[in-house]
Amino acid sequence: MHDQIFSLDALRSAYAAGRRPDEVVAEVFRRIRAAGDPGIFLHLNDEAAVAAEARALGPYDADRPLWGIPFAVKDNIDVAGLPTTAACPAYAYHPARDAFTVARLREAGALVIGKTNLDQFATGLVGVRTPYPVPRNALDPEIVPGGSSSGSAVAVARGIVCFALGTDTAGSGRVPAALNNIVGLKPTLGAFSATGVVPACRTLDTVSIFALTVADAFEAFCVAAAFDPDDAYGRKVRVSPLAAPPPSIRVGVPDAASLRFFGDKVQEASFRAGLARLEGCGATVVEIDFQPFHAVAEMLYEGAWVAERHTVIGDLIARSPDAVHPVTRAIVGKAESLSAADAFRGFYRLADLRRETEPVLDAIDMLCVPTIPTFYSLADLEADPIGPNSRLGTYTNFVNLLDLCGISVPTMPRDDGRPGSLTLLARAGQDGLIASVATWLEQFGPRTLGATQWPVPAAPDLRAVAQADEVEIAVCGAHMSGMALNTELASLGARFLRCAETAPEYRLYRLSGAPPRPGLVRVKPDAGATVALEVWALPTEAVGRFLAGIPSPLGLGTVRLADGTAPKGFLCEAAAVDGAEDVTALGGWRAVVARDQAAREPARAAGESS
Amino acid sequence: MHDQIFSLDALRSAYAAGRRPDEVVAEVFRRIRAAGDPGIFLHLNDEAAVAAEARALGPYDADRPLWGIPFAVKDNIDVAGLPTTAACPAYAYHPARDAFTVARLREAGALVIGKTNLDQFATGLVGVRTPYPVPRNALDPEIVPGGSSSGSAVAVARGIVCFALGTDTAGSGRVPAALNNIVGLKPTLGAFSATGVVPACRTLDTVSIFALTVADAFEAFCVAAAFDPDDAYGRKVRVSPLAAPPPSIRVGVPDAASLRFFGDKVQEASFRAGLARLEGCGATVVEIDFQPFHAVAEMLYEGAWVAERHTVIGDLIARSPDAVHPVTRAIVGKAESLSAADAFRGFYRLADLRRETEPVLDAIDMLCVPTIPTFYSLADLEADPIGPNSRLGTYTNFVNLLDLCGISVPTMPRDDGRPGSLTLLARAGQDGLIASVATWLEQFGPRTLGATQWPVPAAPDLRAVAQADEVEIAVCGAHMSGMALNTELASLGARFLRCAETAPEYRLYRLSGAPPRPGLVRVKPDAGATVALEVWALPTEAVGRFLAGIPSPLGLGTVRLADGTAPKGFLCEAAAVDGAEDVTALGGWRAVVARDQAAREPARAAGESS
Repeated sequence: MHDQIFSLDALRSAYAAGRRPDEVVAEVFRRIRAAGDPGIFLHLNDEAAVAAEARALGPYDADRPLWGIPFAVKDNIDVAGLPTTAACPAYAYHPARDAFTVARLREAGALVIGKTNLDQFATGLVGVRTPYPVPRNALDPEIVPGGSSSGSAVAVARGIVCFALGTDTAGSGRVPAALNNIVGLKPTLGAFSATGVVPACRTLDTVSIFALTVADAFEAFCVAAAFDPDDAYGRKVRVSPLAAPPPSIRVGVPDAASLRFFGDKVQEASFRAGLARLEGCGATVVEIDFQPFHAVAEMLYEGAWVAERHTVIGDLIARSPDAVHPVTRAIVGKAESLSAADAFRGFYRLADLRRETEPVLDAIDMLCVPTIPTFYSLADLEADPIGPNSRLGTYTNFVNLLDLCGISVPTMPRDDGRPGSLTLLARAGQDGLIASVATWLEQFGPRTLGATQWPVPAAPDLRAVAQADEVEIAVCGAHMSGMALNTELASLGARFLRCAETAPEYRLYRLSGAPPRPGLVRVKPDAGATVALEVWALPTEAVGRFLAGIPSPLGLGTVRLADGTAPKGFLCEAAAVDGAEDVTALGGWRAVVARDQAAREPARAAGESS
Repeated sequence: MHDQIFSLDALRSAYAAGRRPDEVVAEVFRRIRAAGDPGIFLHLNDEAAVAAEARALGPYDADRPLWGIPFAVKDNIDVAGLPTTAACPAYAYHPARDAFTVARLREAGALVIGKTNLDQFATGLVGVRTPYPVPRNALDPEIVPGGSSSGSAVAVARGIVCFALGTDTAGSGRVPAALNNIVGLKPTLGAFSATGVVPACRTLDTVSIFALTVADAFEAFCVAAAFDPDDAYGRKVRVSPLAAPPPSIRVGVPDAASLRFFGDKVQEASFRAGLARLEGCGATVVEIDFQPFHAVAEMLYEGAWVAERHTVIGDLIARSPDAVHPVTRAIVGKAESLSAADAFRGFYRLADLRRETEPVLDAIDMLCVPTIPTFYSLADLEADPIGPNSRLGTYTNFVNLLDLCGISVPTMPRDDGRPGSLTLLARAGQDGLIASVATWLEQFGPRTLGATQWPVPAAPDLRAVAQADEVEIAVCGAHMSGMALNTELASLGARFLRCAETAPEYRLYRLSGAPPRPGLVRVKPDAGATVALEVWALPTEAVGRFLAGIPSPLGLGTVRLADGTAPKGFLCEAAAVDGAEDVTALGGWRAVVARDQAAREPARAAGESS
């Protein structure tokens, strides 16, 4: 059992083959002892009790998505029967019930192993701001483990548990992932309930997921995400299984002038190699001016939001200043000089910066940034407890302020052997999109998982069909990936399913206009040809808004595909193609657009082809 | 010209009949002089200059919706060439350009007459907190004019201008409307740009519209509303012309335990009579517990939002305390003791209360409340400058905090002759819905407009159209009323709008099958005819389920109707009608079904015809 890989697929296979979950529990506790790091867990569940809980699951039930899966919980999230300390013994309380998210995971069959260490009150990105022993970075004990979700990240990286819950306000669910060679999934704000979680900045907090692979992190996300009416900041966020990435995506990256590596050339090279990988998978990388994003990032600790932390521990600091870590106390104490007017001035500035980033985000499908700009050692932090922490948030601090979702994904190790990591970021609700693209990145280069010797599993075989609450829509024009109207689909919550072509009984016309539009018309079988298109899954409730925006002579009907399926999709009224150019021979709308573009830019096109 | 009614329709008729806009300008200034109230306008445009601007409009142009329409602007909104004071001389500045909203109105042909008085910095609901003469209530000089948009409301009520701009944070666009027997339209936050407006609470402010009738207010709204990317709080809000109210609406009203009239039985009776009017028009009145709404209202001046006002005038108060009205200074000065943490505590509480009101609002289409709970005199305010002001906000203060839109509409006078007024409130974006229902209320009882002797015009002739959350669907087959598939529409929550016929460019086919189905195909104009159909409003979120059930070769596209509109509706792929019977000559599917039925039942048909 020592060599049992703790991935969801591997454990499920073992269970299906007769392995018992109490055996897995025993192995979990053996690994905890073998790790010999008292800084990872602040409280462990009783081993015998977890084993009993495992046996009580009964016979293996493949319908319970997390049956027998061990996980860890950051100690600012409630687990009934264990104290919640937020790494501050004076703050400790004994919750009567599991946090909403923990309860959902347990209902799905997962087993809580224990509560993990953190930067006290989740204030920090380093993992050393704790009165308990600092957890050792799973790969290199000289380096900080990263925080605030330090223990959860290390427990996953060491293969002790399959996944772990963290929280993420400034980057606490992403920075430790980068430092420990694992995946950190930071959901859309509100997708996970905050009920039973100690707040840091209540308007910016989310529970997050660490796992060894994107697929495992996303499965846990799908189980845990649910609207909680008792959480005033909870939102209804669409969740559906991981789908294949769209074939064509535009990825915004900071331009050379706005990239910040603080002199770490190796990290810069690693970042550029990761972008090349993205391009190799078909993504279009677009350089953007990142200054507005940096400006937002700087607001998080320098602006009014630190006052949110003060609402949580201001009374404790006043009552027992020594109970709070001195660095945490110094940071949160800054709130005492901030007025309500200062807070509003901060919101106004954020609103202006959000407005500034909107057109940037509208023009791309996602952002790709380094998760961290460089690495810092424990010694660095001893010398300066604030500066390195602040710099670690360079590419994370702005994310929740801009209501983006994110996923930090390990990539090929750097030239010096340290872990590579990129973060993908997109607008709220696009968790599935960035996770699907993250599967490209985790396959990049020879690599093992976390601090283990386990190989990266083969790329997951991703389902590409509509769910029960979605309608498959075949799009044959500018709604296709990477084209002008594709953002409209994204804004309606649609997700890419697959490339396809029509049955050989259609003709495609170029309807003149500005811009020209595609007219797909079914004809007699012997008079038609196949036409390339894409099938997207559109939430059923969003179809009305989509239809409302479709102009005459286009509409939505049933499109017969070459693969025998017949999804709904764009059709054109036959009366409208009179006099329009028949472009069927080009095979699809992409070819038409490319041809038109070449015709508009003959010189440039000639230069490119020479 | 003295008897010229200043409504949009009346002025347009006059213009169409040859009246010149400079004559109207002269009449405006004559009325200003006749009013003899130096408290209404703080700055007037030069009469000769406005007359010249009017002449420069050229010949009457019915396509410019506000051609030659005089309006007034609250003096916290910029008009190029006039100072902006916010009723504080020490704050005055001379804007180089019109506010975004003023510019839109002028582009539509409207003429700015002058800038109106207000509660200084829009802080108040009474109209007496100004260093300038207090404008007299247009109906009763003993009563406060209402504020903060006092001058704008009085100018409209006296028939000096057709409409006026106010602003509304706590109720400044509604309370003065109730006190002066006019309409106060408070748009969805962000629908109007804040560019060129002195902020009160920037996150809660909106420009608002006063007019004598709902139709006039809504026309000005439709012209002025536009997304302004330079306003970080601007939003894209759907704007469409005033439509007939839906035939069935649910109106939430405070239950007896949560109604507050502060002892004013006459006002209570007026409110109940207004509700009876709503029920008489077909609305279903639903009593709700209003305590959460009252709790939100109390947060506005007692909570952190007063700090927003401090960001605007805190420096001025510090520098020249005497420059600020003592009551305003006292209110805004409270912000100095509020910390950033207090601000966040306020947001958390608001988030909880919002969550509490959500299911209440989900279960109704709109709220109906008294605009004001009672009336206060100038003497009342002299005795207590705070209390009556606060009570006047009972039914207004919560509205912007909950992101509702609102319209205050005059109703039948109270038994003691004072003006009656109700306010309709709905979720953001429902401005059109509440305005349509407001047309029922303004027709209630014998009444004249504002302080004039002008009669209430006949109810506008409003078309039945889809609301913001509906899509119009033209059905031409068995989905029509009383036919086989009509229950499917009903089960999806659709409602009948109107009978119609296509433009004369369609052909209707009978697609064979069991049952046969109608195939509507657009052809060349000279090859088609009109086809009878019905237009239904389908909830936008239900369109996906509807589409999913539509079999090939039918689909949903855009159908051109004889009346010039082009709703979405059923279309058929042209390739499918090969060999199908052309039934265009029968005029519609009902006739086809009747003919088929007659053919199947010759005996019964013969019997019927005997």
